[in-house]
Amino acid sequence: MNDPHEQAADLTYKRYIACLNARNWSELRDFVTADVVHNGRSLGVDGYQEMLEKNYRDIPDLYFNVDQVVTNEKLVASRLRFDCSPIGEFLGMPVNGRHVVFHEHAFYTLREGKIAEVFSVIDKATIEAQLRSQ
Amino acid sequence: MNDPHEQAADLTYKRYIACLNARNWSELRDFVTADVVHNGRSLGVDGYQEMLEKNYRDIPDLYFNVDQVVTNEKLVASRLRFDCSPIGEFLGMPVNGRHVVFHEHAFYTLREGKIAEVFSVIDKATIEAQLRSQ
Repeated sequence: MNDPHEQAADLTYKRYIACLNARNWSELRDFVTADVVHNGRSLGVDGYQEMLEKNYRDIPDLYFNVDQVVTNEKLVASRLRFDCSPIGEFLGMPVNGRHVVFHEHAFYTLREGKIAEVFSVIDKATIEAQLRSQ
Repeated sequence: MNDPHEQAADLTYKRYIACLNARNWSELRDFVTADVVHNGRSLGVDGYQEMLEKNYRDIPDLYFNVDQVVTNEKLVASRLRFDCSPIGEFLGMPVNGRHVVFHEHAFYTLREGKIAEVFSVIDKATIEAQLRSQ
């Protein structure tokens, strides 16, 4: 990675993930635009923070592990790994406190160095398989 | 994208997708290593080709549209869009010829310019929502 724009995007993303893992909501606006869109929903940064806070309520031991990341000036793609125990229903599945390991693949569009749009897919099939085998 | 290694990875990926869409199996070995691994399964290139041929039997109108792609020297991340009609059950869902639109987020590790490992997640939740609303 020689391009300084790519290095900047990579550093921003690492700091964004550290912000989430620290639940440091006062810093979220440093990384996310005011009008951020998530999977086609115009959440804005307040709605985005509410979504994240709900995630932490639903999954008290939530922690974002970055397994793979690729960046360019305008995009970040990240393979995130989760190793956690959602307390109730999760994505419509009755997890109910069981321990599951799964990935999320997310694409982030950057605008002026901040996350402006996110497309995220969670590996639901793997969670379903783990619940069937428990 | 200034780095020649990134440009090469990007071109390889575009040619790989064109190969899939042309169902040009004789060229697949130009893009995929002999010992390729897919979602943790050591398929090898023969097993990888079998998987793709089965995909085309299950989804006769399958076509890979690249919505977003990010590359570096060693990795390609791609957001793929599908607009198709799987003829029977698909990922355990009774699609049965109905038209669905969904995305796959895939991360490809390159080795000597070929795809050596793939981690792929398909947006099953979106397909389920479409089937419920039809």
